[in-house]
Amino acid sequence: MAIVLGPNQYGKAEVRLVRLRRDGELHELTDLNVSVALGGDLADTHETGDNANVLPTDTQKNAVYAFAREFGVNQIEEYGLRLARHFVDTQPSIRQARVSIEEYGWRRLGPHSFAKAGEGTRTAAVTYDGSTAWVVSGVTDLVLLNSTDSEFHGFIQDRYTTLGETRDRILATAVTASWRHATAEGDWATSYEESREALVRAFVRTYSLSLQQTLYAMGRAVLYGRPELAEVRLALPNRHHFLVDLAPFGLENPGEVFYAADRPYGLIEGTVLRDEAPPPGLAWSLSV
Amino acid sequence: MAIVLGPNQYGKAEVRLVRLRRDGELHELTDLNVSVALGGDLADTHETGDNANVLPTDTQKNAVYAFAREFGVNQIEEYGLRLARHFVDTQPSIRQARVSIEEYGWRRLGPHSFAKAGEGTRTAAVTYDGSTAWVVSGVTDLVLLNSTDSEFHGFIQDRYTTLGETRDRILATAVTASWRHATAEGDWATSYEESREALVRAFVRTYSLSLQQTLYAMGRAVLYGRPELAEVRLALPNRHHFLVDLAPFGLENPGEVFYAADRPYGLIEGTVLRDEAPPPGLAWSLSV
Amino acid sequence: MAIVLGPNQYGKAEVRLVRLRRDGELHELTDLNVSVALGGDLADTHETGDNANVLPTDTQKNAVYAFAREFGVNQIEEYGLRLARHFVDTQPSIRQARVSIEEYGWRRLGPHSFAKAGEGTRTAAVTYDGSTAWVVSGVTDLVLLNSTDSEFHGFIQDRYTTLGETRDRILATAVTASWRHATAEGDWATSYEESREALVRAFVRTYSLSLQQTLYAMGRAVLYGRPELAEVRLALPNRHHFLVDLAPFGLENPGEVFYAADRPYGLIEGTVLRDEAPPPGLAWSLSV
Amino acid sequence: MAIVLGPNQYGKAEVRLVRLRRDGELHELTDLNVSVALGGDLADTHETGDNANVLPTDTQKNAVYAFAREFGVNQIEEYGLRLARHFVDTQPSIRQARVSIEEYGWRRLGPHSFAKAGEGTRTAAVTYDGSTAWVVSGVTDLVLLNSTDSEFHGFIQDRYTTLGETRDRILATAVTASWRHATAEGDWATSYEESREALVRAFVRTYSLSLQQTLYAMGRAVLYGRPELAEVRLALPNRHHFLVDLAPFGLENPGEVFYAADRPYGLIEGTVLRDEAPPPGLAWSLSV
Repeated sequence: MAIVLGPNQYGKAEVRLVRLRRDGELHELTDLNVSVALGGDLADTHETGDNANVLPTDTQKNAVYAFAREFGVNQIEEYGLRLARHFVDTQPSIRQARVSIEEYGWRRLGPHSFAKAGEGTRTAAVTYDGSTAWVVSGVTDLVLLNSTDSEFHGFIQDRYTTLGETRDRILATAVTASWRHATAEGDWATSYEESREALVRAFVRTYSLSLQQTLYAMGRAVLYGRPELAEVRLALPNRHHFLVDLAPFGLENPGEVFYAADRPYGLIEGTVLRDEAPPPGLAWSLSV
Repeated sequence: MAIVLGPNQYGKAEVRLVRLRRDGELHELTDLNVSVALGGDLADTHETGDNANVLPTDTQKNAVYAFAREFGVNQIEEYGLRLARHFVDTQPSIRQARVSIEEYGWRRLGPHSFAKAGEGTRTAAVTYDGSTAWVVSGVTDLVLLNSTDSEFHGFIQDRYTTLGETRDRILATAVTASWRHATAEGDWATSYEESREALVRAFVRTYSLSLQQTLYAMGRAVLYGRPELAEVRLALPNRHHFLVDLAPFGLENPGEVFYAADRPYGLIEGTVLRDEAPPPGLAWSLSV
Repeated sequence: MAIVLGPNQYGKAEVRLVRLRRDGELHELTDLNVSVALGGDLADTHETGDNANVLPTDTQKNAVYAFAREFGVNQIEEYGLRLARHFVDTQPSIRQARVSIEEYGWRRLGPHSFAKAGEGTRTAAVTYDGSTAWVVSGVTDLVLLNSTDSEFHGFIQDRYTTLGETRDRILATAVTASWRHATAEGDWATSYEESREALVRAFVRTYSLSLQQTLYAMGRAVLYGRPELAEVRLALPNRHHFLVDLAPFGLENPGEVFYAADRPYGLIEGTVLRDEAPPPGLAWSLSV
Repeated sequence: MAIVLGPNQYGKAEVRLVRLRRDGELHELTDLNVSVALGGDLADTHETGDNANVLPTDTQKNAVYAFAREFGVNQIEEYGLRLARHFVDTQPSIRQARVSIEEYGWRRLGPHSFAKAGEGTRTAAVTYDGSTAWVVSGVTDLVLLNSTDSEFHGFIQDRYTTLGETRDRILATAVTASWRHATAEGDWATSYEESREALVRAFVRTYSLSLQQTLYAMGRAVLYGRPELAEVRLALPNRHHFLVDLAPFGLENPGEVFYAADRPYGLIEGTVLRDEAPPPGLAWSLSV
């Protein structure tokens, strides 16, 4: 029984790129973290160290910077598509490329002054295999909290149950959500803004009996509003806020004083999709 | 030559407290990280393990939560003063208390919904020694960037100089600033808001020939505007953005494409104060 | 076109468990971070908030602790198997369970004294679907460096190439490796120790023309030595060490002074497997 | 009342330097994180942006690398002294220099192969003011645990007490310790090794009634054994391990199953010194 090479990929990760547009009075700032992963005819470098088919990760990094100058960086989906296509279309040995981008938000303070904003990071992951391109957009590190309108009860009781039922709790999470576009074309800016807004609005408006219910409501809200999207994937850590027992000090605690715990945390993950959504292909990862 | 115990302190660090006010339609959320440090007659516990003078850190944590319920948490300076006074005034063995607080900002999304904001964390450190109280307020993790109006030249040249002079660069930093109040009373909310605003405005408006010049302008702006303050301390990492050399690719780079470096970074630290400022006492640390 | 719920899972993540065995003179310490993910009949809680099929994540956490007491924690694979089987076998609504564990190493200093060790964290991930169990073992955060015997040349040259070829460089990485067992039974301790040793030995002994070559050698070494394993997956960040140009200071730098960079970094990922390996089933993730 | 500039300093922080010695068969690896802070005649750059007195932080970084080549890096105290003296002795405007160094340990795997070790990081901080040099050595991130021989009782009881007394608990901490040398000369390697060993041995051997007692024993052990040292400063977080209540599951828990908490944590800080120790001068910080 022989030992063989299976799926593999390589690339430059976390290229930190800041792109400034200074055409007019107002400077425009784009702040990105770009990661590239490539797949293809890479058996030789694994087996013998022959690098004739290897486009060095250093070169990938150079392309990230050069493309920012040559073509600008407007919407990260568009920028990622251009990069992914470049790697596959110019290198015969590279058959698949995936470009993953985080975009950090900055709030304008003046014509050329900015403060780094904190309400979530925009993301995109673009994959191209020489004929088809897939685009996933998303948001991460978006921390949301409802201070009421959340219950949790009616769950399974077994030998290891100690949790009491509650009719009122804090529900808090750090949203990581990604949504798959049905095609690799679109109005990326509007699609992102409205998808993000739909997520937030659904979180705020859902009277929640479980974080799963909130997750599903958030995913549905995105798909209802955005026909260009086929699927939403969400990962919602349950950032527990435990009511502190103040009875030993002769105090009641009617839902007012909480301990915000670090670990452990619940982690709720789910997918919401159209029942006739096209198959995902390579949208979510390179390896097939 | 004997070996002796020198300055010492102990306490509970990083008590995560979320305080909810739900009196009316609108919930109010306060999200804190509270650290306590106590000093006093603590030789016994060090020398023999006799804990008769030790108020356990667990008890300190309980007080943090109980005070939030009994007295509420409005301004963190006021809350810290109450806690610091409590420890010293109720325990004969405790002679000094320092309460350090971080307050995380949340943006309102609805009557009882919030998104965690990211433009800096408000801080306070309150010290009390049984007769005098000192209050330091501040901000940390406030990331600011000017995309022009920053130069750096005319510096020392020596054998190890390779840096070129520049007439136009990105200036970016993550502000940590603390300002000492002349007395332990005040309108904490207004003082904080206007000090923070003065820092940001000075960063934005200063045409900078060095990060030191910007630092000094920021400190002065706070003191000019806020007569209740005696001193400002600033620590400004210089978050370098290096222009990428695109010449190998036949491209110019007229201040548009930058590499945002992690390490190393410049670190500029300085104090700005009134020349007749009262002495700091224990404002900046417990040990005298 | 309807919107529907797709694959989903939930569980308690990062339960920090320290298990002490104090039967004899020598205490034994086990330090774990345990994460549980469950799948099954969970449509109701998503769609209506009906939690009748939900085993709360709090209960999962309790089971993690109780099992450590009832059955001990010897090998993490065995402990994970027991937990995963428990969730599926006792709850009709739970059809799949995945238990992921990190084990932090401690070095003995005395009969009941320990220092936390740093050369990598042992990992295991166990999945069970009611009939089949899959076991993946591994290591992460194992940082290795060869100060020579590494070259990189003969790679693709294109418009964006600036990297020079090298016949001698530092090769450094932080190994994350996971290996899939062909069956869910085995001598877990020996399998782990020898697989880890094979990885390290292959890294040390491989004269490397690319990090891919080293990766493949590492994976093969594990499979050659351990017949109970079917597949190895490796993720090797290339922790770049750049030679500092000291020529401006009149100094040569014959491979002696390096700048250790944080970002960006190369990331090399690959799979090595037996050509007749059984299919992975749910070994690598819950969703089918 | 005028606003004036107070104490200030600046420098390059976190220069990551790897120094390889490859004279013979065995390569020697030194892995450092070097930070420089300078003080002196810096009013102009703050007040007007005139940088004539400023040695750029980029130049400081270059010196860090060049000195590693010109003079080697043997003991970090010696390397730091040479750098600190260089900055002050060659630049009239620079009156004080402080060089802080972290040294990461690596374990040898072969003639030119290494694994990053994890049992603590060696530190040094060297200060020079043109006539006197001060040296502080130390260790950080050294995580130690005793699984018994630790009690805590007899402490103050007040209204906010809920903690029970204990006659047997886990005592765990991450040691940060720094020790001041009486003079700026010495056998740095032996002094470090034996000081570190004294700390560990005292932690292991002390039957502890409080973490303060352990701290004091650790500090004394260093000073007893090392006459060249004048003072030891320790910061010991109390990494709480809470016994899990298994009674709800019909299980006893006789000191076997623990929850390792992240936050909050106790923080015990103290100084141990010779009663006739020379004054610290600038040993602990630049500002006087």
